[in-house]
Amino acid sequence: MDVGILGATGVVGQQFIRLLDGHPWFRVTWLAASERSEGRTYAEAASWRLATPMPAWAASMPVQQAAANGAPRLLFSSLDAAVAGDIEGAFAAAGHVVVSNARNYRMEADVPLLVPEINADHLALIERQREARGWAGAIVTNPNCSTVFLAMALAPLRPFGIERVIVSTMQAVSGAGYPGVASLDIVGNVVPYIGGEEEKIERETLKILGRAGAAGVEPLAAAVSAQTTRVPVLDGHTESVSVGLREQVDVAAIREALASWRGEPQERGLPSAPPAPIVVLDAPDRPQPRLDADRDRGMAVTVGRLRRCPVLSWKFVVLGHNTVRGAAGAAILNAELMVARGLLNGS
Amino acid sequence: MDVGILGATGVVGQQFIRLLDGHPWFRVTWLAASERSEGRTYAEAASWRLATPMPAWAASMPVQQAAANGAPRLLFSSLDAAVAGDIEGAFAAAGHVVVSNARNYRMEADVPLLVPEINADHLALIERQREARGWAGAIVTNPNCSTVFLAMALAPLRPFGIERVIVSTMQAVSGAGYPGVASLDIVGNVVPYIGGEEEKIERETLKILGRAGAAGVEPLAAAVSAQTTRVPVLDGHTESVSVGLREQVDVAAIREALASWRGEPQERGLPSAPPAPIVVLDAPDRPQPRLDADRDRGMAVTVGRLRRCPVLSWKFVVLGHNTVRGAAGAAILNAELMVARGLLNGS
Amino acid sequence: MDVGILGATGVVGQQFIRLLDGHPWFRVTWLAASERSEGRTYAEAASWRLATPMPAWAASMPVQQAAANGAPRLLFSSLDAAVAGDIEGAFAAAGHVVVSNARNYRMEADVPLLVPEINADHLALIERQREARGWAGAIVTNPNCSTVFLAMALAPLRPFGIERVIVSTMQAVSGAGYPGVASLDIVGNVVPYIGGEEEKIERETLKILGRAGAAGVEPLAAAVSAQTTRVPVLDGHTESVSVGLREQVDVAAIREALASWRGEPQERGLPSAPPAPIVVLDAPDRPQPRLDADRDRGMAVTVGRLRRCPVLSWKFVVLGHNTVRGAAGAAILNAELMVARGLLNGS
Amino acid sequence: MDVGILGATGVVGQQFIRLLDGHPWFRVTWLAASERSEGRTYAEAASWRLATPMPAWAASMPVQQAAANGAPRLLFSSLDAAVAGDIEGAFAAAGHVVVSNARNYRMEADVPLLVPEINADHLALIERQREARGWAGAIVTNPNCSTVFLAMALAPLRPFGIERVIVSTMQAVSGAGYPGVASLDIVGNVVPYIGGEEEKIERETLKILGRAGAAGVEPLAAAVSAQTTRVPVLDGHTESVSVGLREQVDVAAIREALASWRGEPQERGLPSAPPAPIVVLDAPDRPQPRLDADRDRGMAVTVGRLRRCPVLSWKFVVLGHNTVRGAAGAAILNAELMVARGLLNGS
Repeated sequence: MDVGILGATGVVGQQFIRLLDGHPWFRVTWLAASERSEGRTYAEAASWRLATPMPAWAASMPVQQAAANGAPRLLFSSLDAAVAGDIEGAFAAAGHVVVSNARNYRMEADVPLLVPEINADHLALIERQREARGWAGAIVTNPNCSTVFLAMALAPLRPFGIERVIVSTMQAVSGAGYPGVASLDIVGNVVPYIGGEEEKIERETLKILGRAGAAGVEPLAAAVSAQTTRVPVLDGHTESVSVGLREQVDVAAIREALASWRGEPQERGLPSAPPAPIVVLDAPDRPQPRLDADRDRGMAVTVGRLRRCPVLSWKFVVLGHNTVRGAAGAAILNAELMVARGLLNGS
Repeated sequence: MDVGILGATGVVGQQFIRLLDGHPWFRVTWLAASERSEGRTYAEAASWRLATPMPAWAASMPVQQAAANGAPRLLFSSLDAAVAGDIEGAFAAAGHVVVSNARNYRMEADVPLLVPEINADHLALIERQREARGWAGAIVTNPNCSTVFLAMALAPLRPFGIERVIVSTMQAVSGAGYPGVASLDIVGNVVPYIGGEEEKIERETLKILGRAGAAGVEPLAAAVSAQTTRVPVLDGHTESVSVGLREQVDVAAIREALASWRGEPQERGLPSAPPAPIVVLDAPDRPQPRLDADRDRGMAVTVGRLRRCPVLSWKFVVLGHNTVRGAAGAAILNAELMVARGLLNGS
Repeated sequence: MDVGILGATGVVGQQFIRLLDGHPWFRVTWLAASERSEGRTYAEAASWRLATPMPAWAASMPVQQAAANGAPRLLFSSLDAAVAGDIEGAFAAAGHVVVSNARNYRMEADVPLLVPEINADHLALIERQREARGWAGAIVTNPNCSTVFLAMALAPLRPFGIERVIVSTMQAVSGAGYPGVASLDIVGNVVPYIGGEEEKIERETLKILGRAGAAGVEPLAAAVSAQTTRVPVLDGHTESVSVGLREQVDVAAIREALASWRGEPQERGLPSAPPAPIVVLDAPDRPQPRLDADRDRGMAVTVGRLRRCPVLSWKFVVLGHNTVRGAAGAAILNAELMVARGLLNGS
Repeated sequence: MDVGILGATGVVGQQFIRLLDGHPWFRVTWLAASERSEGRTYAEAASWRLATPMPAWAASMPVQQAAANGAPRLLFSSLDAAVAGDIEGAFAAAGHVVVSNARNYRMEADVPLLVPEINADHLALIERQREARGWAGAIVTNPNCSTVFLAMALAPLRPFGIERVIVSTMQAVSGAGYPGVASLDIVGNVVPYIGGEEEKIERETLKILGRAGAAGVEPLAAAVSAQTTRVPVLDGHTESVSVGLREQVDVAAIREALASWRGEPQERGLPSAPPAPIVVLDAPDRPQPRLDADRDRGMAVTVGRLRRCPVLSWKFVVLGHNTVRGAAGAAILNAELMVARGLLNGS
């Protein structure tokens, strides 16, 4: 299936290129970026920041204007939020299915905010979206990077009654794009502020874990509090989490719930699905971004240091690869799920 | 007043040297370290890691064995916990006043765990200590570095009824001593584990904020939960804190309580006392270790990002210089307080 | 004497503010920056990146347009090279003495490229400059940061006949300004390219060490080859140098030449002059930017690892603080020299 | 073919495990380390520092004493130099072929210091070694990590007459093993000293590029001068090189010589051979360790910034993966070459 990438030159766009190189289902045939890049090849337009070389097919591909003519039906978007709203909407109206990493539509009542292992059923919102908006296409979103990992660590705990969550993040610089964080700000330093990030974590988590119904998604009835910081790490967001549960359970039950958790991507054997969405690490000093962010090609989330919390019920550390499972890989898994469910059949 | 340093060659010992260079009350006349250093000058024995040059008086000073002969009455100790218990006890028995940064005696019922702005009255425990142990001298301790900053940020909130505290730390590598953390572990990485640190924060905070009585210190009746991580920062521990208060207050009252807080060191004008123990920063991205850890020569603690917590009552970020206010500077302030109170008068 | 700062909000401009705070001769009364900053206070306009707090007098000072009205006679400039040429020229024409860190006029035949310890006599070019250009004022420049340290380490070796120099630099990120180097480019990385830097080192070094005459400066007749890299260091450029000398000398003579070297700033006791311009370190692993860049408030240059070179004659490592001795501090020392020589007397 | 690893638990030993996982010719059946590790499984004994998980076969393998009983004929050694001399010699005497990364035997007249693309013919020294020492086995060594990359970049230039080489290195912390470099020494810093490294580069390079004859290796008649520094990079040594050539050539000829260079590993298609030993990068800011060290699974060396040197003839930057092409991968390629040449046939 031919696919295109909106916002192909940025840090997440580059991960799309890398992850789709040799993908068994998808073939990238179309790249778009800002006007600045138009008329140049991808090699000319992109400041490639990945340790694996740019695939040759991408290097020579022309970068298009972000307009609908000639674009394939399925589009991945890592557009900047400043422009994603209009552009993604225009493509959806024109019949394209936009699988987006941008924040603009995430909290819309008729837009799935998807983590396939958690809420594949939220795809039902697409019908509502098409009716409400008159779109021939659709928009499906993945969450903010930090939110993905938190939501995945919480999802297996839903049976125990999640009531309260406090999370403190230590986020990698690749999450801010390129050039993003100035080195003078972060070498040997911690910056305890990432604009808008805490609000996203607090709101998106509850929608993801919520119940999709006729009126949109009823968010999980819980409270989430986030503090976010930037640290001098390249890839991988680390999060210290405390969670308050309604049920009394023992540590073995929590550990088993996390480690045995599987979702539709695993059942369907989607190409980008990790064997287990959550890998529980028992070494006392794990997970660590340098050692664990790439687990299962960056698609698994690692959890460690599971222990009782003297204030809420349990505490643990969760880690994920922010530009893979937290961005490009998340969108690709979303698209794979949609293909597997037949949502991209027909015209 | 002549003073000595036990454990003078380590990272905290070096800070003692630096901070006591030109001190108006104290003059270092005696240095002790492990047997390995004995018989060498300080310049030969210490692997100096500070950006200010080693003072000339220290460079040529011989490093002694940690035995009581010839040592001045007042001793600062940054001994390793593996040996601090026996050595500090022996010095106290021999009539020395040991102002210690080691963890060994901190939680003893008759030993002050002192932050002079918070619990100067805990010095009354010394009487009990001398009676119970038959010591001619005494041991006074300062808390674990992360604990100092947390306790200082909480102390002004006691009138509002502290019930629950959740803290997640991002700690500098200097806190682990030298050689300490291996660079392979921490360059571009986060290590979510510091052995024993969380237990110290959870227990010491409540003793510091507690009430000293005949039977020792009754800890504050609150719950503290800590998660600690190591980050690639040289100096300065950053902490994300959520606190649950009994009272309903507004943000202005919290801010004012923090910013206007003063203690006995400020009232007495002790040489190492910062003008205000807590400096509240209103810029949205502060405090940061690189920019704020040295505030008031490392003796002030900075607090920023004060805002409501959706789970507990308030959240904020607190930062302090771990080897100054969190170690050597803390001990020096303790000693200054004791001198000012006349506790070092007489033989 | 009242002074102003052109380009006051950048990284070097901030160092001007910090270094002039409490200066015995100069008082900052006027700040200018780009149009973006105009009409704001300095606290509003500058993104302060230094670990010492912004002085209160600077915080409340309005930032002016870079136009001559109201500006004091003596101006320090850390303007961006894109605009420095026109603006500095206009101020000089209008009677101001511009002591500039910008590269634009450095290689002009009638402009001193000054390192006061090396070539104070190059100030004689000012007469020629005024005649040639009809300026009532003047422009005096300091070299590129890396060049300052190299030239200072070479100057004492001139008596031995400098023929060839090969230098490889490891430069701090503060040298690129703010935001400057993207963290994604430099965290855990080395970037072996700094645009234009190698040419500056190769050409400016020879002018600094050259002889000022009627026709401008006759550069030193030697060859310099530079390779420059950026490393994840905040402040302090480190340089590996090999130098080929005409004379056969022994290591003691080289060491003595470096360590005993003094210049006019030391003779005159200028306020910003370090006691010795070059500090020779004998420890095998020094100089290091973190430990040595701040030596003598950042105004001394440190040299270490002096030993024979199997290809040229000698090799060593030289280090300096790039935004102090390599920029703002260099300009201030230049101005102090001009004041001491009476070049700022009269109208 | 069964192989064993001496010194299996260190940083280079771990790379042996990783690189031999799934190797088409070699199967690891035996692991040895220091006494401390004896009797433990590899998972228990090794502090695994790699971002790819430890292979399951290795995790459960017992770690042996470094004694000959039961060891396979072919052994890889990453023993510490303090013990490698005796142990490797004993194994060679006992009939084992030791392919060693240790420095102890590198400069022995009868021991090949091998870079297969450069001096495969030096393997002829083995005959002489066996005769001289009466060994049934043999020792073959690979060079110091920084030396490998320099020698590989110089080898294609031999036809132009290499006379003088000046190199300044920026080396990754993984080169110092684990725990190795203390984080307090290197976070945000450069350390301009690596004990013994410069001498190794200066001597080993000339042996590698020399001519093997009856009396051992006649080193290349050239002068090499090295300055080495440690930088806060995890993997990948960067080197600024200036080289003086006898012949006048143009840049195209130099570039072509580097890019088209192939050796016996490429001709024989050895499993670990990169397609081209040297990859020339034309982007102005490459090579960079983070982006280029892993090129061709860490076995290719990258060269960039090729340009004229005002002092010698040419200058460029060379980069290689220090624990792969500079250590474990180098030894594996050496062993593959020996197998392909039939040197491991028979008993």
